[in-house]
Amino acid sequence: MSGRIHSELFKSKVMSAQDAAALVQNGWNIGFSGFTGAGYPKEFPVALADVINAAHDRGEEFKVGVWTGASTAPELDGALARTGGVSYRAPYQSDPDMRKAINTGVTYYQDIHLSHMAPQVFQGFLGPLDLAVVEASGIDADGNIIPSSSVGMNRTYLEYAKHIIIEVNEWQSEDLFGMHDIYYPIGALPPRRAPIPLINPGDRIGDQVMRIKSEKVIGVIVTDDPDRNSPFKPLDDDSRAIANNLLDFLSNEVKQGRLPKNLLPLQSGVGNIANAVLAGLLDGPFERLTSYTEVIQDGMVDLLDSGKLTVASATAFSLSPEAAHRMNENAAKYREKIVLRPQDVSNHPEVIRRLGVIACNGMIEADIYGNVNSTHVMGSRMQNGIGGSGDFTRNGWISSFVTPSTAKGGAISCIVPMVNHVDHTEHDVQVIITEQGLADLRGLAPRQRAQVIIENCAHPDYKEPLREYVKFAATKANGQHTPHDLATALGWHVRFLETGTMQA
Amino acid sequence: MSGRIHSELFKSKVMSAQDAAALVQNGWNIGFSGFTGAGYPKEFPVALADVINAAHDRGEEFKVGVWTGASTAPELDGALARTGGVSYRAPYQSDPDMRKAINTGVTYYQDIHLSHMAPQVFQGFLGPLDLAVVEASGIDADGNIIPSSSVGMNRTYLEYAKHIIIEVNEWQSEDLFGMHDIYYPIGALPPRRAPIPLINPGDRIGDQVMRIKSEKVIGVIVTDDPDRNSPFKPLDDDSRAIANNLLDFLSNEVKQGRLPKNLLPLQSGVGNIANAVLAGLLDGPFERLTSYTEVIQDGMVDLLDSGKLTVASATAFSLSPEAAHRMNENAAKYREKIVLRPQDVSNHPEVIRRLGVIACNGMIEADIYGNVNSTHVMGSRMQNGIGGSGDFTRNGWISSFVTPSTAKGGAISCIVPMVNHVDHTEHDVQVIITEQGLADLRGLAPRQRAQVIIENCAHPDYKEPLREYVKFAATKANGQHTPHDLATALGWHVRFLETGTMQA
Repeated sequence: MSGRIHSELFKSKVMSAQDAAALVQNGWNIGFSGFTGAGYPKEFPVALADVINAAHDRGEEFKVGVWTGASTAPELDGALARTGGVSYRAPYQSDPDMRKAINTGVTYYQDIHLSHMAPQVFQGFLGPLDLAVVEASGIDADGNIIPSSSVGMNRTYLEYAKHIIIEVNEWQSEDLFGMHDIYYPIGALPPRRAPIPLINPGDRIGDQVMRIKSEKVIGVIVTDDPDRNSPFKPLDDDSRAIANNLLDFLSNEVKQGRLPKNLLPLQSGVGNIANAVLAGLLDGPFERLTSYTEVIQDGMVDLLDSGKLTVASATAFSLSPEAAHRMNENAAKYREKIVLRPQDVSNHPEVIRRLGVIACNGMIEADIYGNVNSTHVMGSRMQNGIGGSGDFTRNGWISSFVTPSTAKGGAISCIVPMVNHVDHTEHDVQVIITEQGLADLRGLAPRQRAQVIIENCAHPDYKEPLREYVKFAATKANGQHTPHDLATALGWHVRFLETGTMQA
Repeated sequence: MSGRIHSELFKSKVMSAQDAAALVQNGWNIGFSGFTGAGYPKEFPVALADVINAAHDRGEEFKVGVWTGASTAPELDGALARTGGVSYRAPYQSDPDMRKAINTGVTYYQDIHLSHMAPQVFQGFLGPLDLAVVEASGIDADGNIIPSSSVGMNRTYLEYAKHIIIEVNEWQSEDLFGMHDIYYPIGALPPRRAPIPLINPGDRIGDQVMRIKSEKVIGVIVTDDPDRNSPFKPLDDDSRAIANNLLDFLSNEVKQGRLPKNLLPLQSGVGNIANAVLAGLLDGPFERLTSYTEVIQDGMVDLLDSGKLTVASATAFSLSPEAAHRMNENAAKYREKIVLRPQDVSNHPEVIRRLGVIACNGMIEADIYGNVNSTHVMGSRMQNGIGGSGDFTRNGWISSFVTPSTAKGGAISCIVPMVNHVDHTEHDVQVIITEQGLADLRGLAPRQRAQVIIENCAHPDYKEPLREYVKFAATKANGQHTPHDLATALGWHVRFLETGTMQA
């Protein structure tokens, strides 16, 4: 029996993952905890995959809808996707097997903004939520749930689901208690909604625990498994160059009086470039920084340690094994400076706009007019999803996107005449950054944008072909406000599909 | 001397429009009042056009940047565009001469979300604002400005500009005093911003007048000219069919328990279909409606008169001459039920999301996966601009778009394989409505969306070609999450440009 369960009622509900999974019925929608590989249930999903496979082996139909916070891990998305029994998946995912299920049409995937998931669940059109399966670091004596390394959609799923299963994970630090801020908005549904009373990134406006109706809990599972913490890749030259371009830009904004000396709350996507930016900030001139973002990465922990970052608000961790160990050992210290919130608060348009967040997200490609594709490869194939990039881009004080200028060893230009899918429109994208340089699109019309994007951001191999495209498009009878030749606008992608390279 | 000017100081500053225009220097940025043809300065812009033309006749360069609230009128956008002396224009416009200047490359146009214009002005990257030219219905004894038929960007321009010129328009009703709600946010710039304390559409949270620094006022012009009030077109069958499809959908949402009986605050775009929707509401089953929108149209005034609409919040009027007359005669009555706000409040993501607005906007075309084009014709030509459609679509409780299924007598299908420009992404578009029917995209993956859009919304002449496109795209090696054949995705537009019709 786990010492993490302080409620007698919940002690009586402890069972094996197998027994819990056996309770699931064909056709159920299940809301799982989990965000960027943190705080997802570790054992129930694998057991559920066994249940589904067994049903399929008997020739029975068995499908479930899988709702999460964001991406999870092989034990959840991977195990369930491989059964072929996931009928629906939302929102963000990044698992190879789940991606395959989505792209082969086995699973219907809806790529919802992370801030929109909670309101859409409550609107009801996604259907009933039959079960919430949520990882916890503990259960208190009153039967409240102490979250673990992510909050994500948990509050919403626990409130909306008919049944609840809790995985209490003893691997998670008990000292996470107090790091979370669970805001229960008063009158959560319109027309009775109030302002979210958050005016500084570190404000605490809610509870430390998640309140649930105990009668909904049909099982408690005890686990002791690490999060999917990926090893940290050493920084490469491109990432460092991109980070430097962004930091130079921010320094100049301060110099021009357009940003305070300590900047504004920082949001950064996940990954190598984001970590390079954070590493750059560690060596950089800015002090007393704040962060209002989705995910706490290694670089942010280093910044907190250095004192350069005073507070970080997010909804989840995404740490290397080393940083996760450091977090688990020192959670009591970090909870003074880190706040983990529900994702509909961490990503809320209201708060992001109020705080004036500086947004920086990765992308797949941008076009010469400033449209950005974050999700699709060659027009059709889903990579991961939009995640929270739209939430921050659309509402931030400065909205920037980063990518190396080429991919696949130069066969793909990440600056193209027309993106093959638009996730962020020309209206929203303000700054584009590659290792080649930075294009500040603010205040520019499309033809001006094309020039700075091509000259500052494109790889030298693709500069001349891009210039030629613009010149040709401008000569077409319809080459007007946004010069395009629709017959060849997507021709670079078509060429890549046919020849394996965008180069002519 | 106008009886509308109650301040001695401002009486002393009255001058002719010609004398005022002569104060403008080459290179100035000018912020004009005006929103959907309401409350724009009527005489100064024409006089300024004369100044610019005279300079050009002398062989001198003379250019100005033109910032507005949204669209204005021939006396402003038209007169200035025809000089060829507008270097920059933002945000929304709808004038034939300005559109020509934009599309021929004479004027750089930046198509900014209406809610973003105010923050972008204050960020400073658009440059200094040399002059604000704002129409008023009067000036009170303390030198405060009483707005006229639109608020738009006025508060921002009056605060940010170096110099101010006021046009006091005696055509506007004096009883407009008290209809406006000018919110001056405490600590308007981050990191010191507070929640906007607006929780009901009719809440008044600001001043009735606009406070200015009197020393910035370099001229006052007295006019007596009507707004650009366009005659009301009789409703056609398509508009009525579209309106009925929307109203049936809303009725069903109420029946399913997903909307309250009196719906949620309504936003509607401008034009024939919007008026048909409002006319439908007049005869419909809904009572005690509210509106939180950009523009007050004829149909909304009728709804207020009928008692079916209890309150309407907007930033401007867009009325027929008859309705404008009615408004002017009865402004004292209407100001009890109408609130006109700055456009950064009427269109603020924070408020739109909090209130749970039901958004309904027109569009040029939608594609089979739910991406919407609101601005571009055949990939290049700017029509008007995105206006506030993005503000409401991205943050509304339900986001819908309306269009007839075809244009140009059937030569253009408004449902296409791929839109030629994306203003609203698949992540944001929830409902598409034509006279053929309604596609409810909520909860659907791309391949499911394609089916309901084609079967419910496309014109019968284009249904089979659309089905064939989807079928063909799905067979391509890259036809995956979002099946597309990039070589032919824009082929319908290319065919139209070559042959004058999208039909094969």
